[in-house]
Amino acid sequence: MKISELSERSGVPVATVKFYIREGMLPRGETVSATRAEYGDDHLARLRLIAALADVRGLALTRVRDILALIDAPAADPISTLGKAVGALPPYVDGDRDDYPRARAAIADLDLTYDPDFTAVAQLDEALRAVEGAGLDASPAVLRRYADAMKQVAAAEIAPVADMPLDEAVPYAVLGTALYEPVMLALRRLAHHHLLVERETGA
Amino acid sequence: MKISELSERSGVPVATVKFYIREGMLPRGETVSATRAEYGDDHLARLRLIAALADVRGLALTRVRDILALIDAPAADPISTLGKAVGALPPYVDGDRDDYPRARAAIADLDLTYDPDFTAVAQLDEALRAVEGAGLDASPAVLRRYADAMKQVAAAEIAPVADMPLDEAVPYAVLGTALYEPVMLALRRLAHHHLLVERETGA
Repeated sequence: MKISELSERSGVPVATVKFYIREGMLPRGETVSATRAEYGDDHLARLRLIAALADVRGLALTRVRDILALIDAPAADPISTLGKAVGALPPYVDGDRDDYPRARAAIADLDLTYDPDFTAVAQLDEALRAVEGAGLDASPAVLRRYADAMKQVAAAEIAPVADMPLDEAVPYAVLGTALYEPVMLALRRLAHHHLLVERETGA
Repeated sequence: MKISELSERSGVPVATVKFYIREGMLPRGETVSATRAEYGDDHLARLRLIAALADVRGLALTRVRDILALIDAPAADPISTLGKAVGALPPYVDGDRDDYPRARAAIADLDLTYDPDFTAVAQLDEALRAVEGAGLDASPAVLRRYADAMKQVAAAEIAPVADMPLDEAVPYAVLGTALYEPVMLALRRLAHHHLLVERETGA
C-alpha cells in the first residue's frame, strides 16, 4: 500500500509516519520508484503497536523506542531483556543503589529473588516507602496477599513462553509486561466497585 | 514544633510547606504569636502523604489536591467517593462516552458491574484496545486470569472497611487504591523475574 493508505488505515498522519521512519521506529517501505515506496501489513502492525504504547499506555517516545529496540534486537538472555523492559516502564526510580533494605526484607519474606540490579527491586522499595509514608499497612501479611495474587498471574503468563521461539517470546514478555498492567489495575478498581455495589444493594 | 522543625523532620523545604498551606493542601499552624505558628504531628503526617502521592506515586499536584479533598470532605456515598478517587489516578482517559462496548462485553463475561459513569470502565476499554492493538490475547480466558486474581485481592482489601467509621474508611479506600497499585505491579515484575531465574538455574 502507499503511505497515504497506510496513514488512513492506521489513523496515523503521514507526517508522523515519516517521523517514525526517520527515528528508526518504523522500517522504510520498499522502494518501487523514485517517488514511491510500498508498505505492508508489518508496517500497519508496527504503527498499531506504537499507538498502544504511546497513546494508550502513555509512554514517552524515548521509552517506546527503547521497547521497540528490545523487540527488534533482544538480548540473548531473557532475564536481562526483562530487566530492560521493566526499566523502560514507570515508575521511573533511581535504580543505582547497591542495596534496598526495605525491598530486600519484603522479598525475602515472600520467597522471591532479590537482585538489586533488577529495576523492580527499586520500584518495590519506593512503592513500600509510599505505603508507609501514607500510614498504610505494609506488614508481611498484607504484602503476601498481593504477592500470592501476582505469583499466580505470573505463573500463568510465563507458562507459554517455554514453547515459543525467542523472536516470539521476547515481544510477548516485553509487551505483556507493559500492556496487561493497565488491564489488571482497571479490573481491580472494577472489583472494588462491584463489591461496593453488591453491598449497597444487599446482593 | 516551628515551621523550621516541620521542614527538617519532613524533608520538605520551608517554601514548599508555605506553598502547600497557600494552596489549601496543608492546614495552617496554630498562631502562637504575631510571627510564629505551631505545627503538630498531623502536619507531619499530611506532608508525608503529599510526598507519597506526588514524589513516589508521581501524581501531578492538581491530582494530589483532588485526592486530599476527597479525604478531607468525602462524598457521603462510598461508590461516588471511589469513582472520584479512580478519576484522579492514571490512566487519564476520555470518560465522557455513554457506552464502552469492548469493556461492556468483558465486564459481562467476568460477572462484574457495568456502569459507564465509573471511570475504570473507560480505563478498561482503553487498556483492552492497547492489548488488541499490540496483537496480544484479550480473550475471555486470559481476562479471567487477571480478573480472578483481582477479585481475590479486592475482597481482602474491602473486607475491613465494613468495621471502619467513614472518616477512616475513605482514606483507607482512596489511598489504598492509589498506593498499593505500584506495590502490586512491582511484585508481578519480581514474580516474572523469579520464575525466569528459577528456570535458568534449573531450580
